[in-house]
Amino acid sequence: MDQEQAHRWLATALAEARDGREEGGIPIGAALYGADGALLGRGRNRRVQDGDPSTHAETAAFRAAGRQRSYRGTTMVTTLSPCWYCSGLVRQFGISRVVVGEAETFHGGHDWLAEHGVEVLVLDDPECTALMRKFIAEQPALWNEDIGDE
Amino acid sequence: MDQEQAHRWLATALAEARDGREEGGIPIGAALYGADGALLGRGRNRRVQDGDPSTHAETAAFRAAGRQRSYRGTTMVTTLSPCWYCSGLVRQFGISRVVVGEAETFHGGHDWLAEHGVEVLVLDDPECTALMRKFIAEQPALWNEDIGDE
Repeated sequence: MDQEQAHRWLATALAEARDGREEGGIPIGAALYGADGALLGRGRNRRVQDGDPSTHAETAAFRAAGRQRSYRGTTMVTTLSPCWYCSGLVRQFGISRVVVGEAETFHGGHDWLAEHGVEVLVLDDPECTALMRKFIAEQPALWNEDIGDE
Repeated sequence: MDQEQAHRWLATALAEARDGREEGGIPIGAALYGADGALLGRGRNRRVQDGDPSTHAETAAFRAAGRQRSYRGTTMVTTLSPCWYCSGLVRQFGISRVVVGEAETFHGGHDWLAEHGVEVLVLDDPECTALMRKFIAEQPALWNEDIGDE
């Protein structure tokens, strides 16, 4: 896909991640874009804000998009490599592409998605990485809770 | 695990599925039990009721359980084989066991979970199967939407 578009779309997810940080939450954001390039939904991790462990950034964006008959041609943009839960979401619903801000601080299921026909683009965005590095250093227990790591 | 206990726990998930059917929703229910056998959360698919595509039965039960520090020893009980999205949830959070009501009308990711160390028990429960068969026959488009099938 178009790199410039990918970076522009990542900006939406990154704005969500920054808002999450400001709220004292886990700074991961996501956005779902339609086949025509329209924004379908955006959101951020809400574990802290809502006490809701089921709302990762990707599921928040997916929920915000509401019911869709098809996800063909859609793109999930996320500031961080999607965990198994969110990778499963992408695979089950046939989301066509995933744009990943960074996969350095956490390596989720994006290789598995690529193996199963999803177009994956990892941007190695320095702001995404810096946001997570700072968060993980400051709140390691909260981060481990969010990925089910004991 | 204990078959009698598994069937008793399935009754909780099945009650959720029946409630979902009564509401005009997708009749799939789930419950998350703790390592000590206490019910942590229960829920049902809410696509129709809340217009929320992100709430499958398993995610509803997981959300209802609230934030947990560890899922070691927990059991996810679901009336239907978990889709990739819900299988990813189980794997990411280290849920130890999955009890599946039936895997005949839909074969999700439970084999994958077993390969990755999750204890899986498929009960072949006739009421779970009958509930789904009737639903799929009556509302095939809604069912396809819920599993991202075009």
